[in-house]
Amino acid sequence: MVTYNDIEKAHQIISDHIHNTPILTSDSLDNELGSNLFFKCENFQKTGSFKIRGATNSILQLNDTEIKNGIITTSSGNHGAAVAFIADKIGTSSKIIMPNNTPKNKIENVQRYGGEIFYCEPNIKSREDTLEKMVQKSGGSIIHPYNDEKIIAGQGTAAKELIEKVPDLDAIICPVSGGGLLSGTLLAAKNLKPGIKVFGAEPENADDTYRSILNNKIMSNETTDTIADGLRAQVGTVTFPIIKENVDKILLVSEEMIISSMYMIWQRLKIIIEPSCSIVLAALMLNSNKFLNKKVGLILTGGNYDLKQIPW
Amino acid sequence: MVTYNDIEKAHQIISDHIHNTPILTSDSLDNELGSNLFFKCENFQKTGSFKIRGATNSILQLNDTEIKNGIITTSSGNHGAAVAFIADKIGTSSKIIMPNNTPKNKIENVQRYGGEIFYCEPNIKSREDTLEKMVQKSGGSIIHPYNDEKIIAGQGTAAKELIEKVPDLDAIICPVSGGGLLSGTLLAAKNLKPGIKVFGAEPENADDTYRSILNNKIMSNETTDTIADGLRAQVGTVTFPIIKENVDKILLVSEEMIISSMYMIWQRLKIIIEPSCSIVLAALMLNSNKFLNKKVGLILTGGNYDLKQIPW
Repeated sequence: MVTYNDIEKAHQIISDHIHNTPILTSDSLDNELGSNLFFKCENFQKTGSFKIRGATNSILQLNDTEIKNGIITTSSGNHGAAVAFIADKIGTSSKIIMPNNTPKNKIENVQRYGGEIFYCEPNIKSREDTLEKMVQKSGGSIIHPYNDEKIIAGQGTAAKELIEKVPDLDAIICPVSGGGLLSGTLLAAKNLKPGIKVFGAEPENADDTYRSILNNKIMSNETTDTIADGLRAQVGTVTFPIIKENVDKILLVSEEMIISSMYMIWQRLKIIIEPSCSIVLAALMLNSNKFLNKKVGLILTGGNYDLKQIPW
Repeated sequence: MVTYNDIEKAHQIISDHIHNTPILTSDSLDNELGSNLFFKCENFQKTGSFKIRGATNSILQLNDTEIKNGIITTSSGNHGAAVAFIADKIGTSSKIIMPNNTPKNKIENVQRYGGEIFYCEPNIKSREDTLEKMVQKSGGSIIHPYNDEKIIAGQGTAAKELIEKVPDLDAIICPVSGGGLLSGTLLAAKNLKPGIKVFGAEPENADDTYRSILNNKIMSNETTDTIADGLRAQVGTVTFPIIKENVDKILLVSEEMIISSMYMIWQRLKIIIEPSCSIVLAALMLNSNKFLNKKVGLILTGGNYDLKQIPW
């Protein structure tokens, strides 16, 4: 079982390889929204997303034989880029299985770091089948994108850094997809600051975690028809129990609000972030009473957006 | 005559009112371009641009009567927002004369800070006539956008901060329009670091400073047909002598390169910046031999871009 100690250990392992990313604030947004917001900017992280935290923690704990055989993973984009980057850095190869509806810029990002791409259909079965075939063929080591204790521990370091810099936070909102980041965030935040509230933000159009909690068992997504391409995965068997036990609430967000909050962050904070994380600001705005006069940490998970697909 | 001492004094006056903005770097851009780049991010400055430095330095040195009469300025947008913000902060009014082709988002930015807007034709004569009429009518104090020693001293604090954080810079590139920022940058940089090279970057389509240096007298713009809406002004009588004496070169940039460098900065640095400052990266790329293996500071002057007018 993954614990806060694993997050501390992960932080020691990865800290030379990642950025302790900046935390941005905006007086004018605070005044408008009535909360005191702290944006943890993982869009400025190496490879453009938080995914490098978990990937580095996992890969640097492989043994020499495992490393020699190369690394295999499945990814909607950002995890793939992170794995390719670290694999290249330690001198091994990486094979990245990606859904064939992955945005072009995320494919290019994986290619930039030397990852070899294999396409699958955009559903869990095709992804798992392709993965199994690849492993049987090449014998590489699988680095799962989220359903893995080392990944969870690595992702938890983002919230650890956030609370270390802003120790009096009342709440954190982070996106939820497969649940690696949310699990890590929960373990870090609730250990460092027992009273803190932690919320997951999830697209209405890919609401498996919300429904899984409601039904007390893992439910599949009925659609993954969301602009938040990083939030189309299904909560995992390792991540779900952690989330179910610790999360204060999953907040659902419409596509319209995901896009308008993305516009707001680009315009006001002057940063490029993905819809997969503007969702956290949308969740706050949709539940503004809950966060009134509170200090709220918002994890902006990545900035790998295709600038040729502006959604407004 | 404005000197480095004025910049030091300005920094003392304004430092409680501005951000010492972050300096971003990118390993992957450095590798691609063969230079070691330091981006001074004034897009994260209060009101979204460096203009608040000069405006604050000027306005805080007005006497009580001058303040009481209100402040008047002409602006293509960012200086107007900065003046409106500071005027509001010290409890006086501001009247901002703007060209009637100013982008909508820059008009909204002035309105957000409580500036009262008056439109003029987009040429110097209409601007000066409107200004004169307004001053005669209301008796307010004029804060010139660039052709003023206090403005120049204020703008010079950006380069001062940059060199204080990166003392071994070989060169700085900054945009040039009316010349306030470039004059301040030259005075700061050449005093703090005598061997440093300082370049101005100017649109080919608004190349008055380039031609003024060539002809050894102030020349008018033949066109101002550039997407870099902050770079359409004409170099001033106070700024031109400082630039002529100190600048290493004015580097001209085509519209196409302004846009492609803007795309590159958005995509790779994950920040929103205006075409009026992506021009500095374009100037570097067009003169890459000059900057090979050099440490180069690039002043990113602002981030107030209309996100509904994506140019690619």
